[in-house]
Amino acid sequence: MIDVHGWLERLGQTLEANDHAAIAALFLATGLWRDHLAFGWNLATYEGTEAIAAMVTARAALVGAGHWSSEAPAGASEGYIAFETALGRGKGYLRLVGDQALALYTMLYEIKGHEEQIGARRSSGMIDDPQGRSWAEVRRAEAESFEKGTQPCVLVIGAGQCGLAIGARLRLLGVPCLLVDKHPRVGDQWRSRYASLTLHDPVWYDHMPCVPFPEHWPVYTPKDKMGEWLESYADIMELNVWTSTECTSAAYDAARGAWDVTLRRDGREIVLHPPHVVMALGNAGFAKMPMFPGQETFRGTLCHSSAHPGGQGMAGKNIVVVGANNSAHDICADLVVHGAHPVMIQRSSTHIVRQTTMTDVMLKPLYSQDAVESGMTTEKADMMVASVPLRLSEVGARALWKQLRRDEAPFYERLEQAGFALDFGEDGTGIAMNFLRTSSGYYLDVGACEMVADGRIALRSGVAIERIVEDGLILADGSHVPADGIIFATGFGSMEEWVARLISPEVAEKVGPCWGYGSGTRGDPGPWEGELRNMWKPTAQPGLWFMGGNLSLARYYSRFLAMQLKAKFEKLDVEPWHAS
Amino acid sequence: MIDVHGWLERLGQTLEANDHAAIAALFLATGLWRDHLAFGWNLATYEGTEAIAAMVTARAALVGAGHWSSEAPAGASEGYIAFETALGRGKGYLRLVGDQALALYTMLYEIKGHEEQIGARRSSGMIDDPQGRSWAEVRRAEAESFEKGTQPCVLVIGAGQCGLAIGARLRLLGVPCLLVDKHPRVGDQWRSRYASLTLHDPVWYDHMPCVPFPEHWPVYTPKDKMGEWLESYADIMELNVWTSTECTSAAYDAARGAWDVTLRRDGREIVLHPPHVVMALGNAGFAKMPMFPGQETFRGTLCHSSAHPGGQGMAGKNIVVVGANNSAHDICADLVVHGAHPVMIQRSSTHIVRQTTMTDVMLKPLYSQDAVESGMTTEKADMMVASVPLRLSEVGARALWKQLRRDEAPFYERLEQAGFALDFGEDGTGIAMNFLRTSSGYYLDVGACEMVADGRIALRSGVAIERIVEDGLILADGSHVPADGIIFATGFGSMEEWVARLISPEVAEKVGPCWGYGSGTRGDPGPWEGELRNMWKPTAQPGLWFMGGNLSLARYYSRFLAMQLKAKFEKLDVEPWHAS
Repeated sequence: MIDVHGWLERLGQTLEANDHAAIAALFLATGLWRDHLAFGWNLATYEGTEAIAAMVTARAALVGAGHWSSEAPAGASEGYIAFETALGRGKGYLRLVGDQALALYTMLYEIKGHEEQIGARRSSGMIDDPQGRSWAEVRRAEAESFEKGTQPCVLVIGAGQCGLAIGARLRLLGVPCLLVDKHPRVGDQWRSRYASLTLHDPVWYDHMPCVPFPEHWPVYTPKDKMGEWLESYADIMELNVWTSTECTSAAYDAARGAWDVTLRRDGREIVLHPPHVVMALGNAGFAKMPMFPGQETFRGTLCHSSAHPGGQGMAGKNIVVVGANNSAHDICADLVVHGAHPVMIQRSSTHIVRQTTMTDVMLKPLYSQDAVESGMTTEKADMMVASVPLRLSEVGARALWKQLRRDEAPFYERLEQAGFALDFGEDGTGIAMNFLRTSSGYYLDVGACEMVADGRIALRSGVAIERIVEDGLILADGSHVPADGIIFATGFGSMEEWVARLISPEVAEKVGPCWGYGSGTRGDPGPWEGELRNMWKPTAQPGLWFMGGNLSLARYYSRFLAMQLKAKFEKLDVEPWHAS
Repeated sequence: MIDVHGWLERLGQTLEANDHAAIAALFLATGLWRDHLAFGWNLATYEGTEAIAAMVTARAALVGAGHWSSEAPAGASEGYIAFETALGRGKGYLRLVGDQALALYTMLYEIKGHEEQIGARRSSGMIDDPQGRSWAEVRRAEAESFEKGTQPCVLVIGAGQCGLAIGARLRLLGVPCLLVDKHPRVGDQWRSRYASLTLHDPVWYDHMPCVPFPEHWPVYTPKDKMGEWLESYADIMELNVWTSTECTSAAYDAARGAWDVTLRRDGREIVLHPPHVVMALGNAGFAKMPMFPGQETFRGTLCHSSAHPGGQGMAGKNIVVVGANNSAHDICADLVVHGAHPVMIQRSSTHIVRQTTMTDVMLKPLYSQDAVESGMTTEKADMMVASVPLRLSEVGARALWKQLRRDEAPFYERLEQAGFALDFGEDGTGIAMNFLRTSSGYYLDVGACEMVADGRIALRSGVAIERIVEDGLILADGSHVPADGIIFATGFGSMEEWVARLISPEVAEKVGPCWGYGSGTRGDPGPWEGELRNMWKPTAQPGLWFMGGNLSLARYYSRFLAMQLKAKFEKLDVEPWHAS
């Protein structure tokens, strides 16, 4: 049977010959080739031998891939790979079944001559400023130059984790970039949340690009500590960030190939003309507030979860929390801690994942102390995750959850006994696919489930809200739920809503939905895309790009977005390829 | 011939038998055993078989060392080693000549049950505060608790790199600690220096404990960037730092086993009673100002180098810089850049080392990008340096400088032709020993030497200052040097001067000189100590400890000081051993 090395040798020969049939023969009929920039200068998955062969025959000569190698041991049927193209250096992962590939992953790691300025490529640091200025003065002058007519190549709207990640990558590539954020300080997105919030994913999964968390960092980062870290990160990466700066509108001037972006900075209006705008407002930036009959008559406090300050001072109060996903659970638990009486209104079923399951089962092989100590690096772990085409991810996730539901049956039964409506994703694929489809519909349990089960968090499930009255809510079954306060943990709007608001409904329409991969499930209609829509890659609107995702995705995919922007900045002759 | 493994096996057997003659036979007659805490619970070097055997026979049973191992390949005559003792886990390095040890280095890496809380020992981060406070609130409350009667176990005076390094280590070990610093912000020691200053050592040599510089960090850190880094570091390590807080006096209360330390915080006076005080005011904290006849009549500006703001606005002015070491050179070069006319007054010879020599020759094997890429870690590099007893360091340094003076002859000749008085250390051992003896007397050339050679920096060498007059200086040869300003780059006082000023001259006298190892050269009189005096180890004054050194020494030796303080905090039954 052929091993990774043998297959790569064949691949090399076949690419040289560029023979359609021979290429197809390298893969199983259901084989998949996921490529991030290396071959198609796009983020795309080619499914089945026909699609793969079509891509390769169209691109092979141009791409000029060679020097295929692997560190896999002889005889291995899967392993990390490396290669070069005319443009750059690539890495990836290969999975064989018999003599054929089940899945090949290729990614462009760096562009030759335009690598990240790290390691041996770092600057000397010696200050040789003709005006005799210090490093701090030069840095300040750079950030303020955009006030004085200098245009950044890239304007990043939002300086949360996603904005900072792409800002950092662009700094490493020497692309002039400005970030703007409406908050007074970098990290305020996190600081402003409720007191007990921590990151739900463990530290090994959450590193930012280039500056990993140090070895003493807690497993689950407290939200204020995350805020401080991001603020330090912006300094450490020498990012130009204008805080207290809100983007109020943006319009693309196709003739000039640049945007007119209107900013309000500390109350003043400034218009910039960057050729590229990156929307980094997050999957959770745009508060989604429902409107119930009678809502205006409510005499207590009423707010969206993102504006809820936490349970301090709410002891003894009846607080209704509408929603049953992450924020709703966290807020209810925090209310319990502060002696309030929360009532959770669950309007649709929720996918519950215990944090211990996430950390100790799902993430452990790749992102854990054990993984680190066995030699797994963040880079390899990320590549391993990315190397699985979403078709296969779905299959794997379904099998995993079949098992987990059995393993965790007592926990789930206890929740159901409390009346909680559970699901495991529409097709049983659970949280990982859920996240890629809609980033919603789940709670990563850090303790609130026990409170639901034992009644400390009162639950009303499966019954709609009829109307709001001055002292509470009336549900569809006629019952009255008294409330001193109502918190709508009803989630966040989509990235395309930001586009409609800041640019125009027409551009939002043209660009289409962001996020989701066309799984054909609720909230993520088809057609099947196999990659996240519009994320980290060209959109139908020239000069408009999207960052998004959790810390892990921001870390990994910022590399690709940054390389595409670097190519624009350097006017490199590269164009994304699309299957016709 | 015996290899590292064979020798360690013999060592293990010999320790068990604890036979004086057998121990002596393991070493060359001139053999050396450098031990940092592992055997003598002290920082000490035992020289010659008699001293070694005396230490071992006194300590072996108590220490209970065993499990000797090495990752050295079979047949190797030197290599890294590891071992355990009753108290903790140790590491080290062994150098054999034939069947005997030339030098053994042993260090206590961690105390069992009291390890640094990193890796698998990190905290969960989950906030379970009974009062429902956030992480930030809990952190603030901890730092302010010392205002309200809580006593830190350790008060660190000075929050520069040395203070922060020991603060970080103590945080990792869970020892309650407060740092105070007179500056308004952490990092101001660096920010307040002249514009063009960068660290003179390369990045690989300069990592702080636990939070290494990221991969994009410049080779030579600009001074403001260093200030920002240290400020971020204090946050990242969750250090309790009171800035704008000056220590005005300290007295030890032997009966209570605690200090009365008077602090002025934002103008208010606070007295704390910590059992331990760490002086971390640096080798360069106490400005040394000479007083020349007529100095009071000078009509221009006159200041110490540490108060010099940089050359901005000095174009066309005649500035006399008294001194010819690091600060004098850097200040003169900065004055040239700003169009001023500096005159350097060299009163005694200077050891000049080109930065390229330091970075590309001296540090390269252990601290460089090449070293990193060939698998050298900071920990191993540090241990390799520490593993060389100072007797051997002197021998090696002398040989190195014999070679370097030949290799760099044209450079040094050019300087001598300009009238510059050179030396290479009193005994030809150069900068490394110089640094350990007096931390002065040298300049790491980052460009000023060329300016001296080509006359942009005017030089007056070998002639004393007679007196200062209203418009300049009169030298011993009767010549008049006109000056619009005079900068005394005359160095810094010693750590014991801080002790005399803050505690008492009596305690300063009792403790004796800090720094230096008794080399018997100028500024570092004997007797030979073989380790730095009073640094990172117990002093004659209970509860008084010293941090100091460059970033590299602070990083490495802070581990030992922190373990000793941890042992005090935990009341562990350990006492330093002294050869009688």
